[in-house]
Amino acid sequence: MDDGADLVTELHKSKKNIEKIIGGTEETTTGVVRLRSMAREGVLMYPIIAVNDASTKHFFDNRYGTGQSTLDGIIRATNLLIAGRTFVVCGYGWCGRGIAMRAKGFGANVVICEVNPLYALEAVMDGYNVMKISEAAKVGDIFITATGDINVLRREHFALMKDGVILANSGHFNVEISLPDLDSLAISKKEIRENVEEYKLQNGKRLYLLGEGRLVNLACAEGHPASVMDMSFANQALCVEHLVRHAKELSPQVYGVPKDIDEQVARLKLASMGITIDKLTAEQAKYITSWEEGT
Amino acid sequence: MDDGADLVTELHKSKKNIEKIIGGTEETTTGVVRLRSMAREGVLMYPIIAVNDASTKHFFDNRYGTGQSTLDGIIRATNLLIAGRTFVVCGYGWCGRGIAMRAKGFGANVVICEVNPLYALEAVMDGYNVMKISEAAKVGDIFITATGDINVLRREHFALMKDGVILANSGHFNVEISLPDLDSLAISKKEIRENVEEYKLQNGKRLYLLGEGRLVNLACAEGHPASVMDMSFANQALCVEHLVRHAKELSPQVYGVPKDIDEQVARLKLASMGITIDKLTAEQAKYITSWEEGT
Amino acid sequence: MDDGADLVTELHKSKKNIEKIIGGTEETTTGVVRLRSMAREGVLMYPIIAVNDASTKHFFDNRYGTGQSTLDGIIRATNLLIAGRTFVVCGYGWCGRGIAMRAKGFGANVVICEVNPLYALEAVMDGYNVMKISEAAKVGDIFITATGDINVLRREHFALMKDGVILANSGHFNVEISLPDLDSLAISKKEIRENVEEYKLQNGKRLYLLGEGRLVNLACAEGHPASVMDMSFANQALCVEHLVRHAKELSPQVYGVPKDIDEQVARLKLASMGITIDKLTAEQAKYITSWEEGT
Amino acid sequence: MDDGADLVTELHKSKKNIEKIIGGTEETTTGVVRLRSMAREGVLMYPIIAVNDASTKHFFDNRYGTGQSTLDGIIRATNLLIAGRTFVVCGYGWCGRGIAMRAKGFGANVVICEVNPLYALEAVMDGYNVMKISEAAKVGDIFITATGDINVLRREHFALMKDGVILANSGHFNVEISLPDLDSLAISKKEIRENVEEYKLQNGKRLYLLGEGRLVNLACAEGHPASVMDMSFANQALCVEHLVRHAKELSPQVYGVPKDIDEQVARLKLASMGITIDKLTAEQAKYITSWEEGT
Repeated sequence: MDDGADLVTELHKSKKNIEKIIGGTEETTTGVVRLRSMAREGVLMYPIIAVNDASTKHFFDNRYGTGQSTLDGIIRATNLLIAGRTFVVCGYGWCGRGIAMRAKGFGANVVICEVNPLYALEAVMDGYNVMKISEAAKVGDIFITATGDINVLRREHFALMKDGVILANSGHFNVEISLPDLDSLAISKKEIRENVEEYKLQNGKRLYLLGEGRLVNLACAEGHPASVMDMSFANQALCVEHLVRHAKELSPQVYGVPKDIDEQVARLKLASMGITIDKLTAEQAKYITSWEEGT
Repeated sequence: MDDGADLVTELHKSKKNIEKIIGGTEETTTGVVRLRSMAREGVLMYPIIAVNDASTKHFFDNRYGTGQSTLDGIIRATNLLIAGRTFVVCGYGWCGRGIAMRAKGFGANVVICEVNPLYALEAVMDGYNVMKISEAAKVGDIFITATGDINVLRREHFALMKDGVILANSGHFNVEISLPDLDSLAISKKEIRENVEEYKLQNGKRLYLLGEGRLVNLACAEGHPASVMDMSFANQALCVEHLVRHAKELSPQVYGVPKDIDEQVARLKLASMGITIDKLTAEQAKYITSWEEGT
Repeated sequence: MDDGADLVTELHKSKKNIEKIIGGTEETTTGVVRLRSMAREGVLMYPIIAVNDASTKHFFDNRYGTGQSTLDGIIRATNLLIAGRTFVVCGYGWCGRGIAMRAKGFGANVVICEVNPLYALEAVMDGYNVMKISEAAKVGDIFITATGDINVLRREHFALMKDGVILANSGHFNVEISLPDLDSLAISKKEIRENVEEYKLQNGKRLYLLGEGRLVNLACAEGHPASVMDMSFANQALCVEHLVRHAKELSPQVYGVPKDIDEQVARLKLASMGITIDKLTAEQAKYITSWEEGT
Repeated sequence: MDDGADLVTELHKSKKNIEKIIGGTEETTTGVVRLRSMAREGVLMYPIIAVNDASTKHFFDNRYGTGQSTLDGIIRATNLLIAGRTFVVCGYGWCGRGIAMRAKGFGANVVICEVNPLYALEAVMDGYNVMKISEAAKVGDIFITATGDINVLRREHFALMKDGVILANSGHFNVEISLPDLDSLAISKKEIRENVEEYKLQNGKRLYLLGEGRLVNLACAEGHPASVMDMSFANQALCVEHLVRHAKELSPQVYGVPKDIDEQVARLKLASMGITIDKLTAEQAKYITSWEEGT
């Protein structure tokens, strides 16, 4: 079971005992992207189930879990009032939209930066201001990265920011905010509150970095709530069972979570919350998959 | 170009000149479900592009278009205040969630009914009350169906409803609300306002059906706004061009919209709104698809 | 019973039979402002109850009623998709915040313009972009006035607007958008759809005025829903009864609605919706008004 | 300067040096209620300015400050996911509506309990479920009190609650949740996490009390953010200055904050956020207060 494809990468570099491994699972979006790349290049040596891609994982963990815990991390670190702040979210994937939704829910004026035109358009239709980072840099009070990529906030953006802005990351590792750029621009640096470092720039502005640019929900709060991780872990456990039973039939590719596992997890979760839902009648089940019926 | 697979069905029944057809496109979710069923059964005779499945179609047309126009239809037909009403949405697909989002945005207390556990769980996490239709029937003020299936609201539900409730459909055809059941339960029926029919039941309760149970946004308002249909039609046009060029290479299956067409439509739409977005730097483009990089 | 203090003004100018009038009531914010001004100047000749100031009136009629019906008017007139548009609301009183809330609920990116710093600050904390009209004029797609004052949108603003913007008023009379300025700037003017007039400006831009600048919810839709007017009218009726009983004890001032009338209307409305609420226990009623209790 | 009228009460009981006091200020709603009661009974011995009643205080501190910090306290204490939970707010005053707004913003399904019919009706129109506490007790996952009164949650409600519910208070003191009732119903009690006490009831259910029933934002988080307290304290400072200048002219009553102080605070706050707003033109200023103008 991997988180970010680091273990897989390590194993594929060292090749130590790799022939004994029958399969693996991956928890994160970033990891899945890297594994798909390995599969495409033909270097992946065993099948992997992308647990991240389960509906009961990424729709919940990435959106609701990351959304709440990112706000939680920022608030614990700073005790700032979110209402009335211009809150810039870089990346409008599932994590980014969870964060945007919660920042809006706490009264922020949310700005979205995206490179994918489809996601950018959804952000527009969801009522957010959408602009380039170089524009957002001039107006934002709080910046949060959630892209899975590197150097999203960098020298050219820091130079444009207002005095007193907050910088935080909720993507992968500590590479989304360029720490080298921040260091090279700063004339001084000090911790002014636990998990809050003040960078004083040559232009006199002060930028505040949370949790050293690491995942702010882990660095400054308690990570995802248990009540969202339970579904990820249920998927992990059931996928490992599936691999034990079926790995021999699978080639070294990246697979989605079997639909019946995904639905089983959703049913268990609803039951645990005391919620009952409808079932299709026989007539409805027939109609929805039939092409001869219909007016 | 089809809408609901009715033309395709007709053609496959009559078989008239069907050999001259090189391909087709389908606009709706319901149609795609039926076409997939035909392809599975091996009866589909030419390739179809599921325009509905383009991100720039179903994310926008189904969600934002249907969401707004459904509320519009209900309000034009009834002039009711939405705020404070219990608003029951049957189906939490893209249409259903658009409708729920807009009903909430107008101050309704929204209840969701679903058969798919994954969608039901999302509805819960989105803050809605989720329950069986038989429970919702007792508390709802306004009911709207958006499932693509038949007899969603039927005899057993009508019998439980409060006096004065509104019934409307935003799914496909006029089959989601069982008109035969409504007729057989009613002792009288009259149009009390344009597009509003009062069914007086044997139990003394009055139910109000909008637009004869046909799509309420078409029957009682003007359908989707042009500014959302433009993207559907851009996809249709570009997919037809794609079929002209590539139909010979395609077997008689249901295909998604080519990703580059989808992205092209999104880019054109953003440009028309005066919105500019970022591009990945070369370094970022390399990082996001590489498995050897990363801390 | 007056709406906008026009009848009162007329009566005070002509003085015809004015000595026979024992009291009056006023429905709107604008009217109350004018009546207070008359009372201050000592010219008001009989007592007036400001029905507008009842909680069950202005909190509901102005906010929820105007909010929904303004959006309704704009959508009926234009069939535009609200999602993704920059929606400028001039005035953040009860009407303005109702409109802003509903525009946001339909996915707009809402901008607020205000002259009152307290209201402006609330708008900021509610997550809206707050700016001067001269700034908003450059970015807005739809403009709506709800201030009760004149020439809110005028020559200097029209000159800055983008091609294709929509102008509508939801305040009082047709004076909030300066029609003389619009006429003098335009080189042509034509109705392009019912209730939509295109003004082509000398600079080539086209501005679209809805309902001749009159109240858009009345001009282009059906005004407030009955289910919000019922409370206003219940207040009107009970206040008239109150005047019949008590007018002799009242000097010619503007009075609020008696609190027990206001609460009676709220109780009746809740009952009509089937909602039951708690009552204070004897112990709680004593505690909340006592200053000797408490830890 | 008082917070809850405790100091005033103490002084009026002991009467020690009370003749030397020229005036006072009060920070909270609960305190103002008690002071008004003292004034009504003729026992108040010096003038008090109800700082709480300043728009720049209670609209901001009570609503945005309490709203965010209450959620913050609950999340820090429990690390629970708010999305999908039934969140019961007792009291829909400014604090209660701030809490409700933020709980909704974090994806909760919010239920409101109120005794005031006007507030209850607003809660209905704002889209919340409104019901009696005895009904809410059966469905709630998280309960929060914000009424300023005593024994809001008590024996009869605890007995109805589900296993595992969370109890927290954001009103005044630790009297809103009846601790004596909780103690007498419990067969055991233990701290299971910092600030979380598990009460095991005779019926086998477990209730979790946060921060000993004290204000959850103070007990479990850091209280209000500085960026909302700054306005309260600016009002306090300017009101004390006002008392020094004008106390001699004031009788021993409870006074509102002078409107010019309130507006001055709002202007300063907007300026500190870099926001500029419009001013009325001379023509507009004249129109808005005139009764002879108008169509």
